Amino acid sequence: MELQKARVLILGMDGYLGWALYCYLRDKVEEIIGIDNYSRRQFVESIGSDSLFPLCEDRRIHSFDLVKHPDIIEDRIEVFKPTTIIHFAEQPSAPFSMMDRETSVNTQHNNVIGTLNLLWILREHPHIHLVKLGTMGEYSDWIYKNNVEIPESNRIEVQYQGTDIIIPTPRWTGSFYHWSKIFDSFNMEYACRLWGLSATDLNQGVVYGTRILGMADNELTRFDYDSYFGTVVNRFIVQAIVNEPLTVYGSGNQTRGYININDTMRAIGSAIQNPPPRACCRIINQLTEVFSVNEIALMVQQLTGCTIESIDNPRCENEKHTYNPTFEKLKKWGLSDPYKMKDMLATMLEDVEKHKRQINRDVIAPQTQWTERNEN
Amino acid sequence: MELQKARVLILGMDGYLGWALYCYLRDKVEEIIGIDNYSRRQFVESIGSDSLFPLCEDRRIHSFDLVKHPDIIEDRIEVFKPTTIIHFAEQPSAPFSMMDRETSVNTQHNNVIGTLNLLWILREHPHIHLVKLGTMGEYSDWIYKNNVEIPESNRIEVQYQGTDIIIPTPRWTGSFYHWSKIFDSFNMEYACRLWGLSATDLNQGVVYGTRILGMADNELTRFDYDSYFGTVVNRFIVQAIVNEPLTVYGSGNQTRGYININDTMRAIGSAIQNPPPRACCRIINQLTEVFSVNEIALMVQQLTGCTIESIDNPRCENEKHTYNPTFEKLKKWGLSDPYKMKDMLATMLEDVEKHKRQINRDVIAPQTQWTERNEN
Repeated sequence: MELQKARVLILGMDGYLGWALYCYLRDKVEEIIGIDNYSRRQFVESIGSDSLFPLCEDRRIHSFDLVKHPDIIEDRIEVFKPTTIIHFAEQPSAPFSMMDRETSVNTQHNNVIGTLNLLWILREHPHIHLVKLGTMGEYSDWIYKNNVEIPESNRIEVQYQGTDIIIPTPRWTGSFYHWSKIFDSFNMEYACRLWGLSATDLNQGVVYGTRILGMADNELTRFDYDSYFGTVVNRFIVQAIVNEPLTVYGSGNQTRGYININDTMRAIGSAIQNPPPRACCRIINQLTEVFSVNEIALMVQQLTGCTIESIDNPRCENEKHTYNPTFEKLKKWGLSDPYKMKDMLATMLEDVEKHKRQINRDVIAPQTQWTERNEN
Repeated sequence: MELQKARVLILGMDGYLGWALYCYLRDKVEEIIGIDNYSRRQFVESIGSDSLFPLCEDRRIHSFDLVKHPDIIEDRIEVFKPTTIIHFAEQPSAPFSMMDRETSVNTQHNNVIGTLNLLWILREHPHIHLVKLGTMGEYSDWIYKNNVEIPESNRIEVQYQGTDIIIPTPRWTGSFYHWSKIFDSFNMEYACRLWGLSATDLNQGVVYGTRILGMADNELTRFDYDSYFGTVVNRFIVQAIVNEPLTVYGSGNQTRGYININDTMRAIGSAIQNPPPRACCRIINQLTEVFSVNEIALMVQQLTGCTIESIDNPRCENEKHTYNPTFEKLKKWGLSDPYKMKDMLATMLEDVEKHKRQINRDVIAPQTQWTERNEN
């Protein structure tokens, strides 16, 4: 569909990507509104941190909760008549989901029940295109251990017991947060097949970047750098700015996909313009580059001269693995010349430098150990 | 471990299997207590039905909710010091989970969050053996379509992209209830590996039977025959007793595993006696016979002379498929001479006949359509 005819409802518009997407789309689409329960702010506050950049309050956000207020959200959908719903309304932190029983349960409750509510609402509105944020982390373990290509599909062909068969892409992962994303993916694909819904599941790599093109200085999206909600890129940037060593978890060989926030926005714009057919849950692997943690540390070191040190890995994860993701669909949509991390880190450093005095050094070191046993 | 040294906590002791297991184990183990939130009674009442047999109220059940009261249950565990926890505390009906948004959300909330709470509690008590009821329905679709053997394992070996690899057993299923069971299985296996827990996941076929050996006439376990909570066996028995045709959904070729309630009890007793090692989530396919719906209808017809008719299938399910389950582990525990359905239906008919006047014919016909579209 043409972007200027799109009517976009963003669930989770107060978050890192939600706010950026609002800024990206506001002049491109027919109408855009957002809903948020502000749980991200509460979660980050609960672990003693805050967004480094002050959050712009001039926002078209309606304060509702997809878990607690599904009826109200259903009413809003009937009034607003979106063509597209962007579903960012999830608790996004793996360490937070591993902290204790309460945060773990909050994570799966918020994510799985929120998405299930939304699917039931869409049963009555199957023409609305659902764009849902997934994660590349849904493929972990069996892929990492086996040196095979990461598929970009809900089905793969294998040989089993001497027969060629098509199976659901096997999933396995490494935190209760990541499991919640897998459960969402299953519920969503099932609902698409059952009720004829049309959905795009964006299996996203780690997004980095402090701003998108066209964003004013007082409009920056949230920036988390604590050990729960900060990505490795954000933590390294902040550590470099405050002249502390970059802390690499374990060997630093953990390798993942990354994408700049501008490219994420372009990819979501393309997804809106190219909805899948009804009864289809389309998988997009949304990344543009692949780095190990060590490679990112070295890039930050080259720009800042900071030091790097290894600390015990608080997570249970495979540190020695291959990583061969397929990501062809973004390229077909024209993301053939994506931003490169090495070119974008300088802007991030500049933006963070301006807020240097607000940095709380106490929240950077990991607080949650996945397990005391390390039997995984 | 020796059964007489077992201290057993049953979660969901008010249910069909929970009560039967209490009766089965009460004279065999050192101590046994149960917890239930009585949601099964409420759910069945909410759809206008009730257990056909009056429920024995002389029960050692403590009324707590695994979703709402995890702290209290944790305290009880610390006081009671169970060696084994049997986890039956789940909403067990697929049609109920497909009825509307609220029942669907209730199902996944109750099942997934309840189990996740329990896993976090067991993190502090990893020596307790968790026995959890799963379902053979977790394997559906990719198995049914492909004519392969249903594994009895969390991992299978396949060839993918020319490489021999071990993958998590792929899962796919056909109701939001069944998805909740898959999500439970994943959370449970992950917790076992991460925290060194010891669990048995009983992927159970359909259980049938109205009583176990040693149960007094006033102690019968609950018997549901409505379209939501009644199994196909129970519905056929009741239809035969009230001289109505047995209603087969669709072609009646849907083929599943079955097990008599006495054998289920024996299997759970064996699971208690033979706990898996730490950090192991053991899969047991708990069934003893395989029947199509038509075969069950014919058995009931032979005993009663009733008629059989086909009605539109309210579910979205594959009606033409193979079914080759592996179930070797039960045999190793000595269930080599299981009860046969053809021998057990007469007792069920007798028990139901005694309560014929309480049968509500209005609740037998299916009320919930999986979809109006049937695009699956």
